[in-house]
Amino acid sequence: MIYIVLLHYPVKNRKGKVVATSIANMDISDIARVAKTYGVARYYIVNPVAQQRDLACEIVAHWLEGYGASFNPLRKEAFELVHVCCDLEEVIRDIEAQAGSAPKTVVTSASLQGGLLSYEGLKEMLRRNDLPYLLIFGTGSGIAGEIVLQADYRLEPIKGVGDYNHLSVRSAVAIVLDRLSDRT
Amino acid sequence: MIYIVLLHYPVKNRKGKVVATSIANMDISDIARVAKTYGVARYYIVNPVAQQRDLACEIVAHWLEGYGASFNPLRKEAFELVHVCCDLEEVIRDIEAQAGSAPKTVVTSASLQGGLLSYEGLKEMLRRNDLPYLLIFGTGSGIAGEIVLQADYRLEPIKGVGDYNHLSVRSAVAIVLDRLSDRT
Repeated sequence: MIYIVLLHYPVKNRKGKVVATSIANMDISDIARVAKTYGVARYYIVNPVAQQRDLACEIVAHWLEGYGASFNPLRKEAFELVHVCCDLEEVIRDIEAQAGSAPKTVVTSASLQGGLLSYEGLKEMLRRNDLPYLLIFGTGSGIAGEIVLQADYRLEPIKGVGDYNHLSVRSAVAIVLDRLSDRT
Repeated sequence: MIYIVLLHYPVKNRKGKVVATSIANMDISDIARVAKTYGVARYYIVNPVAQQRDLACEIVAHWLEGYGASFNPLRKEAFELVHVCCDLEEVIRDIEAQAGSAPKTVVTSASLQGGLLSYEGLKEMLRRNDLPYLLIFGTGSGIAGEIVLQADYRLEPIKGVGDYNHLSVRSAVAIVLDRLSDRT
């Protein structure tokens, strides 16, 4: 069972300093729709700033209960997966309550090197056992080192045809979930 | 050689009526970065409304020549692929001028059925010959029927784990280009 989380803290800015980033509207809707498509159990959005969480909850409520729910029921189905949390610990506690055990955590980043988990390796683990797996995605210029060090696994970065590896996190989530699906 | 185009006209709205849609900022930047990652030759944005094209060109110029170019040179590399056109014919003429022959056109849609081109089939064609291939993506609720009928090929829709297939076009472009890459 796959869970995903989008971290707005702790992440790095372009200079490597640890910061909190803002929530972008399309981070919610694009990723929620990808999550729904690939059968993700829950999509968590972590932001430590209360006003940011309130904004995210307002957007989610628009599609779940507001005008958006009747305007676009298909979007409602996707937004039902979204859960807004203040930190990663809250996410892990929620998964533990849902799934009966704490998740194995898998960090993703364009810059990970050495000791990496392949997509095939993760697919095999997902097939073999019933444990929840939490894929951690970062905003800004990537997940802070402390989260990378604490994670159980580090997923192989997405490579294209050359050295360029500066995908948006929205694109990265789409590609990772597609690679983990049973299509191939 | 792969070229991609994002159509804002002619596309369908939620009721199936043919309309022109507006350009979203993230349609430019997310897709340009995916295009750069997967070695796409050019990324065309088609919009029939002059003000919309002007807006797109302003955004592109910001990242190519404006403050954005020095703030984020990596984004500049991606935006260099972006070309704004008024219709699909202009795109096809441009590719013909670039590549020496008109492209084979491949439409994409979540709702295509019957006589579909598989990802493996398209990869094989891309390996076998030097022709330009133009992947056509739609905004709104999908590409208008006339464009689908005129295209040389219709690409297999992206399937997830269930019936839900309402990805954003940004996610769809990312997944399609990843599937066509030589990774697997």
